[in-house]
Formats: sequence, structure tokens, C-alpha cells
Amino acid sequence: MKLELAEFLRDYEAMTDIGKTPEGGCERLSLSDEDMLARKTLVAMLEQEGLTVEVDTTGAIWARLEGEQPDLPAVLVGSHIDTVRNGGKYDGLLGVMLGFQAMRQLKRSGEKHRRAIELVVFPTEESARFNYPTVGSKLLAGRITPEKLKEMVDKDGISLYDALVSRGLNPAHPEEGQERLKSAASMLELHIEQGPLLENSGFSIGVVSAIAAPTRLAVEIKGEYAHSGACPMHLRRDALAASAELILAIERIGNAEAVNQSVAAVTLCELVQGSMNVVPGHVKMAVDIRGIDKDSINRCILGVERHLKSIADRRGVMCIHRVISSDAPVPMSDRMISVIRKACDKCHIRYKMMPSGAGHDAMNVASVIDAGMIFIPCKGGISHNPAEAVLEADIADGFAVLYTALLEEANRK
Amino acid sequence: MKLELAEFLRDYEAMTDIGKTPEGGCERLSLSDEDMLARKTLVAMLEQEGLTVEVDTTGAIWARLEGEQPDLPAVLVGSHIDTVRNGGKYDGLLGVMLGFQAMRQLKRSGEKHRRAIELVVFPTEESARFNYPTVGSKLLAGRITPEKLKEMVDKDGISLYDALVSRGLNPAHPEEGQERLKSAASMLELHIEQGPLLENSGFSIGVVSAIAAPTRLAVEIKGEYAHSGACPMHLRRDALAASAELILAIERIGNAEAVNQSVAAVTLCELVQGSMNVVPGHVKMAVDIRGIDKDSINRCILGVERHLKSIADRRGVMCIHRVISSDAPVPMSDRMISVIRKACDKCHIRYKMMPSGAGHDAMNVASVIDAGMIFIPCKGGISHNPAEAVLEADIADGFAVLYTALLEEANRK
Repeated sequence: MKLELAEFLRDYEAMTDIGKTPEGGCERLSLSDEDMLARKTLVAMLEQEGLTVEVDTTGAIWARLEGEQPDLPAVLVGSHIDTVRNGGKYDGLLGVMLGFQAMRQLKRSGEKHRRAIELVVFPTEESARFNYPTVGSKLLAGRITPEKLKEMVDKDGISLYDALVSRGLNPAHPEEGQERLKSAASMLELHIEQGPLLENSGFSIGVVSAIAAPTRLAVEIKGEYAHSGACPMHLRRDALAASAELILAIERIGNAEAVNQSVAAVTLCELVQGSMNVVPGHVKMAVDIRGIDKDSINRCILGVERHLKSIADRRGVMCIHRVISSDAPVPMSDRMISVIRKACDKCHIRYKMMPSGAGHDAMNVASVIDAGMIFIPCKGGISHNPAEAVLEADIADGFAVLYTALLEEANRK
Repeated sequence: MKLELAEFLRDYEAMTDIGKTPEGGCERLSLSDEDMLARKTLVAMLEQEGLTVEVDTTGAIWARLEGEQPDLPAVLVGSHIDTVRNGGKYDGLLGVMLGFQAMRQLKRSGEKHRRAIELVVFPTEESARFNYPTVGSKLLAGRITPEKLKEMVDKDGISLYDALVSRGLNPAHPEEGQERLKSAASMLELHIEQGPLLENSGFSIGVVSAIAAPTRLAVEIKGEYAHSGACPMHLRRDALAASAELILAIERIGNAEAVNQSVAAVTLCELVQGSMNVVPGHVKMAVDIRGIDKDSINRCILGVERHLKSIADRRGVMCIHRVISSDAPVPMSDRMISVIRKACDKCHIRYKMMPSGAGHDAMNVASVIDAGMIFIPCKGGISHNPAEAVLEADIADGFAVLYTALLEEANRK
């Protein structure tokens, strides 16, 4: 099946107009007004196509295209539509809209399929607002409790739990959506790679072997505030200089573990009560470590801890760290990998087997049903940025593979 | 002369009760209601002692104790009484109140002195409200024009110029105060050290050799935002890791120039659009370099520039920097240094010759008349903080030296 590009782009643009930024990207933070409007607009599109749409108590959107045998477990396709701050147009949304497009072209084609196909849109995938990633799929997969949502707060102190309630949702009772996910047959998620590997290698499709899991650490270094003129160098306990050592150490750790496809970086760094004429006394940082090899991830964490101890000892500063989240790397289902590879072969599209460095909803879904992921390249590997860009030819290839794999899976006995 | 401690503390507490903070410090921002009340309270105290008080058009308070030869240029003693946000009890106020105490005990003693002694209280010494330090003394010393006060605005957009006018002052015509300062014989300022050198060395008195001048740089490093999971290590251009190199390089530069009594630090560091799951793409920093040796300061600046270039070359990031302000270090008058040292000897108090890392009104005064500074230790070197603390024994030593030096200078022919 060939993508109806004009139709697809018309609806795609209607979605990216919501939360459009001056730089040409999108900002639809989870449960913001823009996110709510995008959800409403999408639901209207889905209903207009004659799909049966339901929003469950957790805010997940489900749209069903009935199959010949409604009693068989459905095949899911989906992703998310919320974005990071000042994000791009393709992260998440592309997978949702191509899934929708596949369902609509399949419906229109009149081709029979055994199983129902359901589009699922997971809420709060991005950690931009509540500092916690893939929350919607985690909750539906039963990997976190509703209580945990109360601990996830945005910069204004609003918890994700309260934000959901204020949007008329009922996160205390996720059972309905959990049951719906658990009883499905499998899920396919298409996503932009968010890295440069596909583009560099010239393939238009990546078949994801495993999803790297983020381990996030919160680190605080407390030294001593001092007058930046009056305190001599040898008596300073500069929390920022101590933090700089950690930042570079973590970069070295990431470089050393690159051979095992792990990465590590300090992604947030904030001075507490910084002032032009004061030696920094307190710095807060966040560390993001990812990989698909558990031993490698553990070596990264141990390396951070070893350096924190050494910095504290040498500099007389206090280093505190805690693990904010630590997920295990998730291999994709062998069966779904095989379904996607066969779809590529059928479409005569070359593909690259590869890990996903980024986390995705599919990694949570994989804990309850078979899950598989399809990557397409994005320009320069740039993502979470208004400059996110995708070639139309790659969108078309992604669509063809997704459609073929979905139909194959929906016809499974 | 021995400090009348009870009398001194009674009046000192009356002053620190104004703008008292819950943490036990003081907040009397320049020209705030608290500052105005403190000024009024001080003027009343001065008048009650029989001193002749005048407030000039710039807001400087002058209180005169007449000498035997009223035509000889007067000897000045003073500092400031405004504070930083959430400041301490001793920065500025101690020098003013000990100067006042010296004048009152001298008057009461009936001891003759040739020259008049004048207490001077400079307004707006702290940069906390208008982001510009030692403004009052700069204006009186003719180092800035009244027009410049219109550019200094607080966070509500009120200019220092307008704030002065709204308090009934007339900053457009500072001539009267300028003349009074210029025609004085000399000035002595006592201040807490605001650093830990005196406390660590066990001396109760520091004789200031020179006042270090701050050079401030604004630095920006732009790398590339990238997904912190999906972008492999070797393709990252991490602006924070690049900044960390600079932070440590500046610390090394400061350490290397410590022998010349220079210091250097990155005091502000902010991620532009930082996010937990994004490799930092843009960092803004501020660098504070101080010293009393111009060549050493210049080597620090050149060192920063050299490292910025090297970091840009090696990491493929863009480094931009500009000089925000650059003041020349100010040596104290040899004659006043000698007067203070002799006073210490006479009082049998050991002293340490030292530079002042922090800026003070005396550095502006030094451009028009002989100026000298006396430091006393503060606990842990802590200042600009409610935890500012001073030993009574050190206050007593500071008083003895200040009194002796003032009397010596007031009897000069």
C-alpha cells in the first residue's frame, strides 16, 4: 500500500499547527492547553474516519478499526503526541499519524483482516513537564502505581496526578486501560530515530532490537558560598568547579562505554542562589545514562559514584546523589522483529537492525504483550528541537513497512 | 581609648533592629523604607551627641565634630549602612557605628585635636538593588555623572536617579558633596574582611594595602542540542561539558595567579532550555576575576580567552565572550597605611598587611584624597549572609586602632 501523501500531510499539518513555535517546531507539554487541544483535534479526526474512539481514565486515547473476528485480541499501533519544550514536529506524532493513516487506508481499501486494529496514544510520554518519561504507558503496563503520579511535579508544583484530575481524568483507577492493553495481541510503534545512525548509514528503516533504558540520577554538590573577591583561591570550596569535574568525568565514562552502546551525560545543572559576586555554594544536577547492556550501565553508575566520592574527598564538598529512575533495557519481541523484517522484505526496503538509545512507550508495553518498533531517519539525528526534519521518501517507506506489518499481524490466526 | 561596649552595642542593636530578618540578619536595600528609617535613626543619634549633621543632595550623610583649627581640611571616617538582600549585621554598618563611637568618645574625653573629624555615610554601596556597586562614593568622587544613575534600574524598573528624587534628594547637583569630599584631608574606613584570611591567621586587624578591582566577563558556549539517549557520544557537541572545561580552566588560572593575590571563578552558569533528556546545547556563564596586580588580572583574562579558543577548536562549539566591566585595582595611600600601622603598634595590636578582595567606598575616595582601610575578622569569612558574625574582642581592637589613627590624623599639622 502506498501512502496517500497529500491526505496525510493535510492532517499532519493540522496537528503541528497546534503549539507551533516561532522557530517552526512544536511545544505541546503534557496536559497543557496545547496538548489538550491536540488530543481533541485528533479524536475528532479519528471519529470522522468512523473509528470507535474511547479515552480511558488515564488519558490514553484508543481508536478501534474492527476486524473480521472481534473476539480475537486486537493489534495495537501507536505512540504519543505530547512534546518537549521547544520541540520538533515528528517525535511521537509521526508514529500516531502514520498508524492512523494505515488504519484509514486499510479501511478504505476494504481489505479484510481477522483482528481489530487499535490506535493507542499514550499520554505524558515526554519528561519535559513532570520530569518522568513514558508515564502513560508505564501506568497502563502496571509498572507504576497511581500513587506514584503524586510524586511527579512540574516546576509550578502541580503533580501529574492533580493535572490529570483537573483535566477530568481519573488516574486512581487505571484498570480499564490496563485490561485493554494486557488483552491486546501485540503493538507496533513507528518513531523517528532521534539519532544519526540511520541517516549516516543510508537505510530508510531501522528495526529496533532493544530499547536502551535510562537511569537518571539527581546529584547535589554543596560547597561553601564565599565572596568572589575576598575569599582566596586555596580556601574556596567551589560547588560549581566540583560539578565541572563531575560533568567531565561523566563524559569520559560515556566515551569509555560507547563501545557497548551506552551513553552518559549531565543534562541539567543549576546554581542554587547564584550571584555574580559569590563563589557558588550549591549546585543541582541531573545525570542521564542509557544503554542496552546492563553491565555497561552499572559500570557507568559505579563510575559516577566513584567520582562523586573522590570529588568530595579532594575538594571538601558534600556530594549527595539519588537514583531518580532506573529502567532495565528492554529487548523487542523476537516475533515482532520478524514481522517487521518480513514486511521490509515484502516492500523491498533495506533495513538496519539497531538498538534504540531513546526510551519509548513500546518498552513498557513490551512487559505485557509482544512489542516491536520501526525507526525512520531524521535529519542530522536532530530531535527534541524545532529543527527536527524527516524526508518524505522516508515517511513513505515507514508507512509501507508499518502498513504491511500491521496487516500481517492483524491476519495472524 | 577603650571601647564603651555597652553604649556601643545599645545603639548598634537599635540600628540592626531596622530591617531585621527572621534568620537574624538585616535587609535594608538602598533607598528602601528600611534604609530610609535607618538613615533617619542614625541622624537622630548623631544629633543627640551634638554633632552637626547634614545630608547632601546625593543622600550622603555628613556629621562633623569640630576641631581646634576649623579651617584645616577635615579627617573623614565612614562606610555605608545599606545591605544586600538577606544580608548580615556587620557589612558597612560596623564601620559607620565605630566611626561614630570614636567621635563620641573623643568628644566626651575633651581631648583637643587640630582638625575636624567628619563621619560620612555613603548611600547605595551595595549593588543588590540597582546592580551597580559603591554608587554614592563614585558620584561624590566624580567617577560617574548623575546621568549614569538613570541607567541603573532595580528589578521593578525604577532608576536610582528616580529613587533618589522620590526620597526628596537632588542627584542632578552633587557639587556640594563632591566639594566636601575633595576638600577633606583623608578618609579612614573600617570594615569586616568578608574573607577568611584574618580569622585563619589569628590577627585581629588587617591593614589594607590595595583594593582589588573586579573584571567581569559574560561567556556563552553554543554546542548542539541532541537526544541524550539516541545521540552517540562521538557525535555530541555538549555545551555543558565544554563549559565544565572552562570552569576548571578558570579555577586553575586563579590558582596559578594566587601568588599575585588574584582570584578567578565562574560565578554564574545557566543552561538555556535545559532538559533531563537533552544533551545541553547552550550555556551562559559569568566570570569574576579580581586582583590588585594589573598584569596578573590581564593574564587571567588572556588565559580565559585562550581556553575558550582551544575549547571551541577541539569540541566544535561556539564560544562568545564580552567584558561586562573592568575596573583598575586601587592602592591605598602610603601615608594612611603608615598611620594605621603606627596606631596598631601604639595599641600593641598585631596586624596583617593584606589586599581587599571586595570593593569598598574607600576605593573611590582614594581617587580624590588619601584613603586607608582597617579590616577586622568575620567568622568563617562569611559575609552577605545572615550568618555574618564578629567577635566583641575584634570589635574592641578595631575601635582602638580606628580611634588612635583618627586622632593621629586629626592632629596632623
